[in-house]
Amino acid sequence: MSDTSWFPREAIAFGGDYNPEQWPREVWDEDVALMREAGVNLVSVGIFSWALLEPREGEHDFAWLDDLLDLLHRNGIAVDLGTPTASPPAWFFHAHPEARVVTRDGTVQGFGSRGMASPSSPAYREAAVRIASALADRYAQHPAVVMWHVHNEYGAPVGEDFSPASVAAFRAWLQERYGSLDGLNAAWGTAFWGQRYAEWEHVGAPAATPSVANPAQRLDFARFTDHQLRACFVAERDAIKARATQPVTTNFMANECATTDLWAWAREVDVVANDHYLTAADERGHVGLALAADLTRSVAGGRPWILMEHSTSAVNWQPRNVAKRPGEMARNSLTHLGRGADAVLFFQWRASRSGAEKFHSAMLPHAGTTSRVWREVTALGADLGRLAEVRGSRVHADVALLWDTESFWAQDLEWRPSVDVTHRERVRAYYERLWRDGLTVDMAHPGADLSGYRLVVAPASYLLTQASADNLRRYVAGGGTLVVSFFSGVVDENDAVHPGGFGAPLRDVLGLTVEEFLPLRAGDAARLLWTWGEEREIVADVWADDIALEGAQVVASYLDGPAAGGPAVTRNRFGDGTAWYVSTRLGIDELAPVLAAVYDDARVVPPGHAHDVEVVTRRGADADYVVALNHSGDDAKVRLGDGVELLTGTRVAGALDLPAGAVAVVRRPTGGDGPQE
Amino acid sequence: MSDTSWFPREAIAFGGDYNPEQWPREVWDEDVALMREAGVNLVSVGIFSWALLEPREGEHDFAWLDDLLDLLHRNGIAVDLGTPTASPPAWFFHAHPEARVVTRDGTVQGFGSRGMASPSSPAYREAAVRIASALADRYAQHPAVVMWHVHNEYGAPVGEDFSPASVAAFRAWLQERYGSLDGLNAAWGTAFWGQRYAEWEHVGAPAATPSVANPAQRLDFARFTDHQLRACFVAERDAIKARATQPVTTNFMANECATTDLWAWAREVDVVANDHYLTAADERGHVGLALAADLTRSVAGGRPWILMEHSTSAVNWQPRNVAKRPGEMARNSLTHLGRGADAVLFFQWRASRSGAEKFHSAMLPHAGTTSRVWREVTALGADLGRLAEVRGSRVHADVALLWDTESFWAQDLEWRPSVDVTHRERVRAYYERLWRDGLTVDMAHPGADLSGYRLVVAPASYLLTQASADNLRRYVAGGGTLVVSFFSGVVDENDAVHPGGFGAPLRDVLGLTVEEFLPLRAGDAARLLWTWGEEREIVADVWADDIALEGAQVVASYLDGPAAGGPAVTRNRFGDGTAWYVSTRLGIDELAPVLAAVYDDARVVPPGHAHDVEVVTRRGADADYVVALNHSGDDAKVRLGDGVELLTGTRVAGALDLPAGAVAVVRRPTGGDGPQE
Amino acid sequence: MSDTSWFPREAIAFGGDYNPEQWPREVWDEDVALMREAGVNLVSVGIFSWALLEPREGEHDFAWLDDLLDLLHRNGIAVDLGTPTASPPAWFFHAHPEARVVTRDGTVQGFGSRGMASPSSPAYREAAVRIASALADRYAQHPAVVMWHVHNEYGAPVGEDFSPASVAAFRAWLQERYGSLDGLNAAWGTAFWGQRYAEWEHVGAPAATPSVANPAQRLDFARFTDHQLRACFVAERDAIKARATQPVTTNFMANECATTDLWAWAREVDVVANDHYLTAADERGHVGLALAADLTRSVAGGRPWILMEHSTSAVNWQPRNVAKRPGEMARNSLTHLGRGADAVLFFQWRASRSGAEKFHSAMLPHAGTTSRVWREVTALGADLGRLAEVRGSRVHADVALLWDTESFWAQDLEWRPSVDVTHRERVRAYYERLWRDGLTVDMAHPGADLSGYRLVVAPASYLLTQASADNLRRYVAGGGTLVVSFFSGVVDENDAVHPGGFGAPLRDVLGLTVEEFLPLRAGDAARLLWTWGEEREIVADVWADDIALEGAQVVASYLDGPAAGGPAVTRNRFGDGTAWYVSTRLGIDELAPVLAAVYDDARVVPPGHAHDVEVVTRRGADADYVVALNHSGDDAKVRLGDGVELLTGTRVAGALDLPAGAVAVVRRPTGGDGPQE
Repeated sequence: MSDTSWFPREAIAFGGDYNPEQWPREVWDEDVALMREAGVNLVSVGIFSWALLEPREGEHDFAWLDDLLDLLHRNGIAVDLGTPTASPPAWFFHAHPEARVVTRDGTVQGFGSRGMASPSSPAYREAAVRIASALADRYAQHPAVVMWHVHNEYGAPVGEDFSPASVAAFRAWLQERYGSLDGLNAAWGTAFWGQRYAEWEHVGAPAATPSVANPAQRLDFARFTDHQLRACFVAERDAIKARATQPVTTNFMANECATTDLWAWAREVDVVANDHYLTAADERGHVGLALAADLTRSVAGGRPWILMEHSTSAVNWQPRNVAKRPGEMARNSLTHLGRGADAVLFFQWRASRSGAEKFHSAMLPHAGTTSRVWREVTALGADLGRLAEVRGSRVHADVALLWDTESFWAQDLEWRPSVDVTHRERVRAYYERLWRDGLTVDMAHPGADLSGYRLVVAPASYLLTQASADNLRRYVAGGGTLVVSFFSGVVDENDAVHPGGFGAPLRDVLGLTVEEFLPLRAGDAARLLWTWGEEREIVADVWADDIALEGAQVVASYLDGPAAGGPAVTRNRFGDGTAWYVSTRLGIDELAPVLAAVYDDARVVPPGHAHDVEVVTRRGADADYVVALNHSGDDAKVRLGDGVELLTGTRVAGALDLPAGAVAVVRRPTGGDGPQE
Repeated sequence: MSDTSWFPREAIAFGGDYNPEQWPREVWDEDVALMREAGVNLVSVGIFSWALLEPREGEHDFAWLDDLLDLLHRNGIAVDLGTPTASPPAWFFHAHPEARVVTRDGTVQGFGSRGMASPSSPAYREAAVRIASALADRYAQHPAVVMWHVHNEYGAPVGEDFSPASVAAFRAWLQERYGSLDGLNAAWGTAFWGQRYAEWEHVGAPAATPSVANPAQRLDFARFTDHQLRACFVAERDAIKARATQPVTTNFMANECATTDLWAWAREVDVVANDHYLTAADERGHVGLALAADLTRSVAGGRPWILMEHSTSAVNWQPRNVAKRPGEMARNSLTHLGRGADAVLFFQWRASRSGAEKFHSAMLPHAGTTSRVWREVTALGADLGRLAEVRGSRVHADVALLWDTESFWAQDLEWRPSVDVTHRERVRAYYERLWRDGLTVDMAHPGADLSGYRLVVAPASYLLTQASADNLRRYVAGGGTLVVSFFSGVVDENDAVHPGGFGAPLRDVLGLTVEEFLPLRAGDAARLLWTWGEEREIVADVWADDIALEGAQVVASYLDGPAAGGPAVTRNRFGDGTAWYVSTRLGIDELAPVLAAVYDDARVVPPGHAHDVEVVTRRGADADYVVALNHSGDDAKVRLGDGVELLTGTRVAGALDLPAGAVAVVRRPTGGDGPQE
Repeated sequence: MSDTSWFPREAIAFGGDYNPEQWPREVWDEDVALMREAGVNLVSVGIFSWALLEPREGEHDFAWLDDLLDLLHRNGIAVDLGTPTASPPAWFFHAHPEARVVTRDGTVQGFGSRGMASPSSPAYREAAVRIASALADRYAQHPAVVMWHVHNEYGAPVGEDFSPASVAAFRAWLQERYGSLDGLNAAWGTAFWGQRYAEWEHVGAPAATPSVANPAQRLDFARFTDHQLRACFVAERDAIKARATQPVTTNFMANECATTDLWAWAREVDVVANDHYLTAADERGHVGLALAADLTRSVAGGRPWILMEHSTSAVNWQPRNVAKRPGEMARNSLTHLGRGADAVLFFQWRASRSGAEKFHSAMLPHAGTTSRVWREVTALGADLGRLAEVRGSRVHADVALLWDTESFWAQDLEWRPSVDVTHRERVRAYYERLWRDGLTVDMAHPGADLSGYRLVVAPASYLLTQASADNLRRYVAGGGTLVVSFFSGVVDENDAVHPGGFGAPLRDVLGLTVEEFLPLRAGDAARLLWTWGEEREIVADVWADDIALEGAQVVASYLDGPAAGGPAVTRNRFGDGTAWYVSTRLGIDELAPVLAAVYDDARVVPPGHAHDVEVVTRRGADADYVVALNHSGDDAKVRLGDGVELLTGTRVAGALDLPAGAVAVVRRPTGGDGPQE
């Protein structure tokens, strides 16, 4: 669908999850009045309402929802109508106890919390499609309904399931994938540890075992789990589409939940939607937020997307639920918008008095309308009202960061060279280096067309298929600049080490061979001598490689540590491009000289903003929109050419004054003279 | 019953658990001779003897117990006769495998350790009543038996049980509690996360679930667990009372085990009994001991109580079992006595050679009668012999500290604002501040009559019903002084946030509203400026509140941290009284200026003893008994008026010299001229 | 059998596990060619081949193995033929689901990893004997086969098993052990906690219980587990011996896996074989390696043994798998050889591309024959070729360190005085002190003949039977020197405290009684004043004893801590010998003055090598072979008399120059004039 047609208003969508079933009917009227006061124009309803909509199996009660949708529609508030299938009712589990999810060690997960049944349960699939169909039958024509919101956060809290239904489905999925047992035995390397299968019926899920389970089996089980969840979505989506014309979506959890392969999921939704919550322990959570937003936009193919949930202040499910400081919610919201969101929604409208999330913040908090949070919510609603013209505009990036969920799955399996290496940590470190340098980044699958990027960064390409390696080779040969971090190109799609050794598929591109991994002991460090340009020492940790050069230039060498004397960072001209290799773990500060040198090769020019000032541009048909945010405690000045600041309506000439904590959105002519990033 | 009639001797009871079944018959004679040497006058027997008393189902063997009781009686040693129901025999679990306890994740707890069957098992209840009845039938008239000791430490190691019998009983208990499913759905807030129940048979226990279980369900399950355990006690008690006239008790674990609601339990026993063990890792364990003793006395309604178990030296079940130092056992024992105990008993008489507790100290240790421990045990017996007149005297307190087990249960459920806040920690911190200030404290339920106290301290009233809040309001309005710590008055009896927001039930009393919780990150601190009297800075951590003042005075403000600039500590005049609010976590030292100011309001005057000198007074009909203990390494002088030191028989004139580590008990005229606390 | 006859070559055996089934047939030819290049003369095959050898129950396929053995034989490579019973095929678990291992908490361990079925499963025993018999039938006469390798690493990953078959077998084992239930009740001390059994059928395994399980039951279950595993070995061994004449072995895991009692196992094998892997986190892993090698030689009764597995570089199953540095593999291999190994084998020949151990190093690594590892492997093969004459020579030790697996099992059960005390830690600390002092050590069972040793060290004799204590008494009375560390002589074979108190069986020998254990709090230290010779202060931690002297001299006293003023280290003349007692935990450096004084008593003279220079001597019929290794970063000179360095063929006159990291093997005349250790 077109970039904007999912929301039939000339506005940025603003609102949140609305669960009025937790409140008496008279509160609904107050809610709607306050929504209007706050500028709310879209709410998601029905997400946890299965037990009310179908109080007994096959017996529906839509009266309250009719009432609610009519009330919302009368007040001009559009509805994103949820299917309630993330939380089946008590009767479902009572009637279908075999549909309960089973953990790896055999614990049966019962009712009384939240979380779907086994995604492989036929009874669950049938019940889910039935309630989704009934909703679509009844509300396809309702004028309030502008979108369908299937389920909630597929993949959490229920991901892998070891119930008998799941095991049977896994076997069927494997038969489909491999055709023959020989294929499976080869892919899983069952000759190791004597695991060869002679009959399909002997093949099972990687449940509890005396030692570690077969990693290829575990990787396939992750793929299967993703597939089953997606099949649940598709079944509901198709039932709705058979009855209704509004777009269908479901809310992802980009960068927070690794159960789902978002590249595949994005292909199935009409519009991409994402939930994002700060990690309270992370004092630089705004960078993680930007990463999640960029990932969401990237899986959406660059099209605008929906921020389906975030929080007005603290959440409740982390160890220490830090509240947002004044202005922080607005910065968070505008960062999402700057990175492509055309909707800013929250979980949830009104704070729940009961249940596991009573301490989760809301648009209307327990403290009511006299609170700081409410004041900031209404201010945000007003601000978004001034940004309607931003809708549909696009973000451009010169830099791509490789993101492959399959590599994530494979890398974090057991028995790796070092527990100190995780997929997520390296992605965040490289991302944050780029963020601090002011560069806008797309995530890209390693098999995707990369020709449009000046620079491609591969922080964690542990699993890299030969096809993807060939794609990277073509990219570099064609003039691109590539940076590869250590422990990349190690295994193929079956978690088998590539013939030729570690990194073999990129051997010619990088101009080197990794002979051996040299992990460091806990707490140990290694010093590097950087010799590209001005000499300096850099401290690294966690990892080193024993590298045999095959043409690459040494840019930094190990002064000590297990690889003392050997190459640490290398650069290799390959075809018309350049490939860098970083064989150790460098902190975000320590990555600065490396990336600075890489930028030169890539002809990428960092804009040079002040510390913790974030600037990102959306390009519209008629104008560019520069979103500027000051996350620091110091006032800043941002050069961005001439334009108009939309929140205040003031003119900007050349540079913008951006006080500590402030946000601004500047409309300027397309291709204006300020920095592009 | 009267305060002293439970023990028909003119003496402080002294002795311990006696398990002679672990030893050959000839050892019994040696035991009894040594008991006489040590001054033992009461032993508890039979607590783990079920398998001997009923070696096969329904087949009894009382011969050895007849022999034992006769032997003890001949030697003038009274018997507290246990029912052995804390540890059913192997045959019971073999015949009734369904009576085994099941953990939350479904693990079945088998035989071979210690621990009762499911408290909801009909077979267990029947077997327990049968053995208790048989014992009462046989020994009701035995002259040695002065008391009945039902079971052992209800609530540990078996508390919550998820066996089918328990689930069925929980459902019945809920039907009784709520009458209708509508009531249950409302109380549990099942509209959240779609948990509404349409049939009673769908309701279960909060066993393993994909995400966190419904907190109101978990709170009710804690109530139910407590109820079931108590029902087991009542069933045995009633069986005994139908046959015997001696008082019936069971041993609590005040402040160590939160499974039982001692306010309710204390109403069911004839005399309150408690077990106490030091936490070895706590270098100030003597303060925790005083807290437990005060709690025990408080649930006993101020009447004297029995210290049923403590240890002569190290225990065996902690990570590092620190032995008591010379003199420490006597100080421990006398602290219990000073805080209301009329019995000083130990686990156990003779150290076990075998089994899980072979490294638990005993009155007669493995090293025998040449040991330090044995010398101190006999000295203690002699000392207690000099204190018979203390029996029946009472402790008076001007300060009450609120203690509500239901709040404890609710506060420590999952998904709270910060894991750094626990019920137990704040109770101990405020208690220790009062202890260091030399003030004697009662624990009080928030719904109890508080009018007799000058000061009420609420360190952890997370769950506070509207009725209890009204009770506190009346107390303050009537002239009382109240101190409330943060995260109080948050939820009602169903763990639902009070309408009106956090702390709403105390809003007028405190003169403020808590808009938002502002937990700190791990390791972070916040500075306060104290402005009541002399200005000073105070460092706090873990928590801050965003407070909107509604009449309260600001006594301290935040200089930094998430609430920088806002109120930190407040004081509010309400009616004829004063209410203080402390919105952050202050250490014991940091609480000193706050409490000093509060004491002024409450007209409480701390007595000003030397550091770690503990003084507590029991008031008798004819005299006061001042128990003084020096926990420090320095000699001290204690002002306490004129009297006689009973252990040495020396006269005290005005002040008592109390060497490092020493104990003293001074009889002085009622209302003597020394400090009252 | 004779010391050398197990390997019918005049050579040190060199090679490793060879799993060609993971590779196409054409790779086998390359493998064999490279083996010849590297000097490989022995490989172990078939260890994980059950699913290939018996693809369906009862259906055998030996063709590939025929081919393989012929190929190896044609190339002069001998074969250690494995039975594949450590990893039954999928069909086995499908046909016999009841044979799956069950964990203590009831989790069933399924297929898909590695690990045997329940060692108590009749179906498993039958299947294992069947495949072992079939292999022996077919290959008993094959000229390549020089040895049989039953199973793999008994005891890991499968040790204790709580399946119904195991419980039934445990009951039968107990009936055999105790004869009557009275015997069992007495041994287990079931009077404690009311655990008395009245019927055999009520007795079970120590599975999940509400509190800790009966420790004597757990100790017996450890014995039973060891017995069952050994019974599996014996069944296979006997099946092979009925058909074949080659020696039979299985690979131990000395000092790494406590599931098996190696004293008993060593009696069942024809030749002792051991696997050893460095603990990567241990920067002094070479000392742990020496300990394992000495233990292996000791259980072998001093006869040469087989190093069946070690690694060329990193392993894959530790948290951080540190690679070996250049030269480290050679030092490791030569240490094993120096301490008695006549075979140096590796896991594995060629690195696996797939499966859980793909990151385990190999003789032929992923990086191939251009790699450092390959170069060092071929160099090692050449070096070993120069050492053939060392075969069959013996190591002599003047010092014995007590090693009793039963004490290990008992000491590490739950509810001990302090979690900071572990069996393994003290053994390593005393061993490393002896190692640093250059002394060669045998491990000895406390019941063994100790008369040949000048010094016996007891670092962790928690469980010490009266018979073993009497043995130590005889040793000291006869003129021996004994050092006993704290927490020794505490319990008998049933984990029951010895009558007379802690350490009672050694009371007269040590000249003291331990009245009470005084564990320290976490992080606390205690100072000692050493008064034997020059006064000095020594810092200790973790533990102190309250000691009553009964004749012993005080050599060091506590200056502070819980035993302040009391004896810390004592010395007692007993008969013609001397017994030392160390009542606290001393670090390796802090043990130096204690052991120095002990050496004087024992007339043991440490040779005084440079730091981290290791020298050990094998005594042959015609010459001594001094293996010298320099683990330090500094060049060293080693005095060892005149001889010939065999690796280089150079003459040594008086002293050897040993550069940093180097190894040397010097042949010198028997009883040459250099230091003997």
